[in-house]
Amino acid sequence: MLRFSWRQLLRLESASIKRYSTANCVVDVDECAKQSCELVDQAAELLMEANKKIRVFEAKTSNQDLVTATDRQIENLLVKGLRREFPDHVYIGEEGTSGASTGRKLTNEPTWIIDPIDGTMNFVHGFHYSCISLGFWLNKQPELAICSCPVLQLKLTARRNCGCYLNGRRIRTSGQTELSRALIMHELHALNMTDDHKDKLWAITVDLYRTAQAIRSTGSGVMDQVLVAMGAADGYVEFLPHCWDIAAGTLLVREAGGVVMDPAGGEVDIMSRRVLAAATPQLGCRMVQVLAANQIYHKRDDEL
Amino acid sequence: MLRFSWRQLLRLESASIKRYSTANCVVDVDECAKQSCELVDQAAELLMEANKKIRVFEAKTSNQDLVTATDRQIENLLVKGLRREFPDHVYIGEEGTSGASTGRKLTNEPTWIIDPIDGTMNFVHGFHYSCISLGFWLNKQPELAICSCPVLQLKLTARRNCGCYLNGRRIRTSGQTELSRALIMHELHALNMTDDHKDKLWAITVDLYRTAQAIRSTGSGVMDQVLVAMGAADGYVEFLPHCWDIAAGTLLVREAGGVVMDPAGGEVDIMSRRVLAAATPQLGCRMVQVLAANQIYHKRDDEL
Repeated sequence: MLRFSWRQLLRLESASIKRYSTANCVVDVDECAKQSCELVDQAAELLMEANKKIRVFEAKTSNQDLVTATDRQIENLLVKGLRREFPDHVYIGEEGTSGASTGRKLTNEPTWIIDPIDGTMNFVHGFHYSCISLGFWLNKQPELAICSCPVLQLKLTARRNCGCYLNGRRIRTSGQTELSRALIMHELHALNMTDDHKDKLWAITVDLYRTAQAIRSTGSGVMDQVLVAMGAADGYVEFLPHCWDIAAGTLLVREAGGVVMDPAGGEVDIMSRRVLAAATPQLGCRMVQVLAANQIYHKRDDEL
Repeated sequence: MLRFSWRQLLRLESASIKRYSTANCVVDVDECAKQSCELVDQAAELLMEANKKIRVFEAKTSNQDLVTATDRQIENLLVKGLRREFPDHVYIGEEGTSGASTGRKLTNEPTWIIDPIDGTMNFVHGFHYSCISLGFWLNKQPELAICSCPVLQLKLTARRNCGCYLNGRRIRTSGQTELSRALIMHELHALNMTDDHKDKLWAITVDLYRTAQAIRSTGSGVMDQVLVAMGAADGYVEFLPHCWDIAAGTLLVREAGGVVMDPAGGEVDIMSRRVLAAATPQLGCRMVQVLAANQIYHKRDDEL
């Protein structure tokens, strides 16, 4: 298991602003970074323990339960651990346990947005791409991001204006500007999609497939953003992701020099269930052009 | 870099038959296993060297040349090394260098079928799934298979009737029988495809997408078969793979307890540019049913 000190990971010495005041509380971002890094390390250990059990190749029927339990256990660990230090902060988590709420509005308050296991189905099957994702937002801006994929021994961290780090080393996106030379991550999940949305998703896939160099699907939106930040992929587009699929990845990609935007162009809105990430603004704009004919809009994460 | 002795990898002690005679020569399969394992280890080192150079995040334009050179270098190393020991054998390789021929007929003669880098485009981009694939066939049956993915530190080996091993440990497929619970690998490449073939490929993708639990694309057919053998995926179907994409994977999946067949059912023919692999015969048959309406046939690998 790779371990890094929070100082090394988040390069706190280079951060220019360490404390913020909001209407309700004073936020010490250094302390947030320290606590969250330690908790994610513990969560990664839990994930690897569960991973060992899955790899026993027992009947797969029981794996779903194991994973659901691990999912909750990790969210519990993260939310309880953070809440102990930061009781005034807001918590949004996929599982909605430990008092973390799902579908909550994003405010100016310090907000932790948590996906305990992204790529749960991959994890059930033992497919490589699954990770823990933790994003910390303040004044509706991403401030800290941690994504840990212990199976692949990848740990990505970013702090606003301080760069993106992979296992403690600074990383940058590929710098690719041309779609015809780009490897694009695109997810084909369609749970709860209407037929109209499914048809559009197919049209989008065909359009990307005809214009990009290659299309890949990992089944984990967070890992797709990690790949863009690492320069292993050039672009990523997804319709219907939740805010916990985007909250950390957005900062990772931006701090690695890439762009994150709405698939129709313009500012990304992490509650809108729409996201596009690209190695460069040029590639992002080209992807927006290709997607122009088929846009999918869904009920937002903050519409209860 | 993981290293294993050829004895450990191929479990030669458990092999019941070690030597065969064909019309032209006597084949010592033990010796074939030993030589090929050593050469693949050397090739994996070359691949990792090139990988380091790619990861410097230089302009991607120059990466294609680096990869093409590495591809040839690895095929050269493998074919020259094996030919030194086994001058009477037949060599089929993707690059067609070192006297290895592309598109050659498969005979009863001892035949090495080599893909120096499968998933070349992934390798160019720094995406995880790329590997070296080496299959040894005799009397039109797969006898030995080695697949090395040094980036992920995965080394798979199989010998006919002796099981499939991952980094020296015996592995088995997932045992999944139901398509609705299966994670299926399916590749969307369409280079040199006619419009009719492209339409069929889309119809197939839609059909799989509606019946399987999840669809993933790695862009490497060999890695897809590795994932099925490991139990990390449950099924794999591809139209238009070449014989070097299947020659090793076929044995890996079978020795891990899975099935490899034609996508329309029946025996797989590695020259036919069609392949389907599944964790169990039941899942394979279910996939064949889903694919029945849309079958793609192309010019065979042995039609010159």
